[in-house]
Amino acid sequence: MPGKLFTFEGPEGGGKSTHAAALAQKLREAGHTVKLTREPGGTWLGEAVREILKDHQPPPPTPVAELMLFLAARAQLVEEVIRPALAAGAHVVCDRFADSTAVYQGYGRQFNHAQVRELNRLATGGLIPDRTFLLDLDVSAGLLRAQSRQSDGGRGTDRIEREALEFHERVRQGYLELARQEPGRFQVLDAARPPAELQQAIWEAALNVLQS
Amino acid sequence: MPGKLFTFEGPEGGGKSTHAAALAQKLREAGHTVKLTREPGGTWLGEAVREILKDHQPPPPTPVAELMLFLAARAQLVEEVIRPALAAGAHVVCDRFADSTAVYQGYGRQFNHAQVRELNRLATGGLIPDRTFLLDLDVSAGLLRAQSRQSDGGRGTDRIEREALEFHERVRQGYLELARQEPGRFQVLDAARPPAELQQAIWEAALNVLQS
Repeated sequence: MPGKLFTFEGPEGGGKSTHAAALAQKLREAGHTVKLTREPGGTWLGEAVREILKDHQPPPPTPVAELMLFLAARAQLVEEVIRPALAAGAHVVCDRFADSTAVYQGYGRQFNHAQVRELNRLATGGLIPDRTFLLDLDVSAGLLRAQSRQSDGGRGTDRIEREALEFHERVRQGYLELARQEPGRFQVLDAARPPAELQQAIWEAALNVLQS
Repeated sequence: MPGKLFTFEGPEGGGKSTHAAALAQKLREAGHTVKLTREPGGTWLGEAVREILKDHQPPPPTPVAELMLFLAARAQLVEEVIRPALAAGAHVVCDRFADSTAVYQGYGRQFNHAQVRELNRLATGGLIPDRTFLLDLDVSAGLLRAQSRQSDGGRGTDRIEREALEFHERVRQGYLELARQEPGRFQVLDAARPPAELQQAIWEAALNVLQS
């Protein structure tokens, strides 16, 4: 039986990486084979792209170049890692996936939404997560949390965090809009809740997916 | 007055880099300001992408990842280098441009042509060269020429040259098809002609463009 794909979405500072790792750990403890990965990254090509986005020299990547780099990393991750793992029966837990592009590029940078959807479809070959956990967070709270850390190994965090608050507000609203469009796939969680509570909610939802 | 954009296209081994450099040199000698550049490359981001394509670890980039990387490099080159140069009145000579993607990805890797056109339009913002020199070469002759060199600083030459001869034949036919579709922009040149003759033909065509 093919494995299930779980993705974590939301702003920087919402605890995606922590909760993705925790879910992977609990799945392993329950006897499942699990591949924990992240975007952009998870492959040699994806990590090289991540470096370009994080540590580029000035001037910064143009919005289109940035969009294309995220898509390149995603295409490689899907074909090299995610599809083979799912086919082998492993579950995959991914810290960010196509929704990040839909929201950061589509809503944040205001690319045409239909075009971004089409590009995501090209990059993923139509692969859709079985369950997406959206760690929703008030914009100013998220920025404060992210800034209080040296680095979160995040996707161009330093640069993206310098963007206007408005950008992040558009991103938040974009995520909530996607969640409204696909209520069966998204689970919206208040990232300000105690981590142990969130972990429990995520685990219960994951069990439901495994039993479905 | 804005500058003109000249691009060189064709298979590896056809002399694109040599003739691009020669045209830039002649334009400079005639008193013009010239920006000579190449794809993928010409910017920090583009050169980083070039490295990924050329020196990646196995497995190779997937066709979609490769497509997206070329587009990322192009988007950055257009916005960071080509448009500012043209706006400042400089002429730009570029070794490969959007036609390479139309042909290598559209015809070679057989992506949907309309989709590749749309992606190129996104990456270039609709910028079209004033003149494109297609250095056409018999497929087996081109491969031989390219293999006889240690390295041509080419775009993933090592990998691409291992591709089947059929791929290269589709690429050649794709270029000739594009040239038939846009006879006013393309100038098809037999790359097997003596270099000095070719240089002269290119220079005369360039003078026509400058006077138009």
